[in-house]
Amino acid sequence: MGAPAFIAGDWGTTNLRLVLADADGTALATTNGPGAAQSQSRFEAVFDELTAPWIREHGSLPAILCGMVGSTIGWINVPYVPCPAPPDRIAGSMTRVNTRNIFIAPGLSCRNRFDAPDVMRGEETQILGALRLAPELQKGHHLLCLPGTHTKWVVLEDGVVKEFLTSVTGELFAVINDHSVLVRSDTPAGDISETFGTAIAHVQRFPDAALSQLLFECRSRQVLGELTREQAPAFLSGLIIGQDILAARRTFADVGGITVLASAQLTALYRRACAVLNVSMNAVDGSKASLAGLTLLHSLRTGRVNVA
Amino acid sequence: MGAPAFIAGDWGTTNLRLVLADADGTALATTNGPGAAQSQSRFEAVFDELTAPWIREHGSLPAILCGMVGSTIGWINVPYVPCPAPPDRIAGSMTRVNTRNIFIAPGLSCRNRFDAPDVMRGEETQILGALRLAPELQKGHHLLCLPGTHTKWVVLEDGVVKEFLTSVTGELFAVINDHSVLVRSDTPAGDISETFGTAIAHVQRFPDAALSQLLFECRSRQVLGELTREQAPAFLSGLIIGQDILAARRTFADVGGITVLASAQLTALYRRACAVLNVSMNAVDGSKASLAGLTLLHSLRTGRVNVA
Repeated sequence: MGAPAFIAGDWGTTNLRLVLADADGTALATTNGPGAAQSQSRFEAVFDELTAPWIREHGSLPAILCGMVGSTIGWINVPYVPCPAPPDRIAGSMTRVNTRNIFIAPGLSCRNRFDAPDVMRGEETQILGALRLAPELQKGHHLLCLPGTHTKWVVLEDGVVKEFLTSVTGELFAVINDHSVLVRSDTPAGDISETFGTAIAHVQRFPDAALSQLLFECRSRQVLGELTREQAPAFLSGLIIGQDILAARRTFADVGGITVLASAQLTALYRRACAVLNVSMNAVDGSKASLAGLTLLHSLRTGRVNVA
Repeated sequence: MGAPAFIAGDWGTTNLRLVLADADGTALATTNGPGAAQSQSRFEAVFDELTAPWIREHGSLPAILCGMVGSTIGWINVPYVPCPAPPDRIAGSMTRVNTRNIFIAPGLSCRNRFDAPDVMRGEETQILGALRLAPELQKGHHLLCLPGTHTKWVVLEDGVVKEFLTSVTGELFAVINDHSVLVRSDTPAGDISETFGTAIAHVQRFPDAALSQLLFECRSRQVLGELTREQAPAFLSGLIIGQDILAARRTFADVGGITVLASAQLTALYRRACAVLNVSMNAVDGSKASLAGLTLLHSLRTGRVNVA
C-alpha cells in the first residue's frame, strides 16, 4: 500500500463514490455522496466537502472522475469519444475542470448495430479497468455485458471498444414491476429463485416471442394459479434478462464469449441465466473494474504508463 | 327503431357504458358510469341508479353485461369458457346475477401459442359482434387484433374463437412513457405523426431486434439531436406497435389477414403501421361490435336466434 496519489470518483446519476487511492489503485479510504441528479449547480461544493478530510491530512491531490458528472447534467460537459475508442484516446480526451487538478473522463458514442446513435458514460472507465483485471480481454473479440438500468453490450476488439448497444433492462423491470397491473408485489426480485430459472427456460423455449407477448404471463399465471404474487417479480426479471441475453447472442453472433462486469449480486443472476441458456460466461467485479479504470486514466494522464 | 328490449352493458375495469337498446341492437339511449375497480361492493347500486330513468319510463328490462364485471373484482365471478369457444357456448355460459334479470357474459381462457395460460373478459363479446358486423369473418381463418392496455390477438376458425394471445402494448407504452427516463414528454402519442411512421419503418428494418434493444433510442436520439422531446412518445408508440404487429405476423404466420377491432383513433394508428409494414388489414368499429355482441347474446338467451 503506497502513499495517497489521487482521488478516484465514479459519479453517476444517482450515486457518487469517491476513493482515496495510491498510485497502484489500492483503496486507502472511501466515501459516498449524492449523484449528479442531486448535485446540480453545486458539484464543486459536494466534491470539496467530501474530500476535505483527505486534503487536510494528505495535502492537495489530483482527481479523476467518470460518469454522468461529465454530461449535460454534470459538472462540465465532456464530449463523447466516437468508437472505435482505444484506451489512450479515452485518456487523452479527459477534460480538466476549470483550473483545478480534476479531470473528467469522456463518455463514448457509436452508431450501434441497429443503425441508431448510442452513448455511455462511466462504463468506458469500467471497461478500461476490466482490461487490466482480466488481461485476456486485451486480445481477440469479446462481448462485455455491463448490466444495469441501461445495460451496455460492448464489443471489444484487441482491447479497443469497437461498438456497443444499450439495452433497457433494469429500467424496464422497474417501471413494469412498480407501475403496471401485471405484478403488484413488493417482493424483491434480486434473489435467484426457482421462478427466475423457470422464466429463463420459458424464454429459451420460445426464442421468437416478443417481450410484449410474454409479459401478460406475469398476470395470467397468477389468475390461473401457476404463479404466486410473491413469485411474479422473479418471473418478470427472468423474462427480461433471458430475452436480453438471447437477443445479444443473436445480434452479436459473430463475437466470442460473454464477460459480465457487475456487482456480485447481478453477476450471480446472469450466471444462473447463462447456465440455463447454455451460454458461456466469465465475470469481472464491477466496482474493482471501475477503480482500476480510474487508476489507469490517472497513470496515463501523469505519464506513468503508456498504452499503444 | 323498435321498442326498448334490453340494457346492454360493457363494464370494464375503468369504465362502464350502458346502452338502452331495441331487439335489433339499435341504441336508443346511452349512459356512462364508474368501472369495476371503482364499483366494488356497490355494483347493484351503481347499475340501478344509472338505469332508473329508463326503468321508470319503459318498465322492467333484462340486461346483458360483459367485461370485468364478471371477474373476481366484479359483481359476480363468471368462470372462463375454455377455447375453442363457439358463440352458443359463450351465450350458454352467461351467469345470472342472483334472482335478477341480469346476465353476465363469461370471459374466455386458453393455453396460448407460448404454452401459457391466457384470459380475456369483454373482448369475447366484441368478437361475437364483429362476426355479425363483418359476416365474412364467419368462414375461414382470421386473425383479429383488439388493441388496448392488454391487446388481444385472436384466431378465428369458421367463426369460432380457437385460441388467442395477449400482448401487453398499451400498458407497456404507458409505464415507459409516464415513468421511465427515456421519454419525459407530456406530448400525447395518439396523433399519427411522421415520427410514428419512422419508428415503424425502423422496426421493420431490424425485425430480429428485441424491444429492450431498441427502447434506449427514445433517449439517445434525443441526446444526439435526431428526435425532439415532443416526438419521443410517438417514436416509443411506433416501436411497441410495430414490434407487436410483426411478432403477431410471425407467431400466427399460418393465419390469414388481420382485422382490427378498435376505436377510430386506434384503428387509424394500426392502419398506418400496417401500411408501412406492408401487412393487409381490415377494420371493424370496436364499440359497434361490443353492442352487436351484447345484442347477439340477448337474442341467443331469449331464443330469438340460434347459432350453430
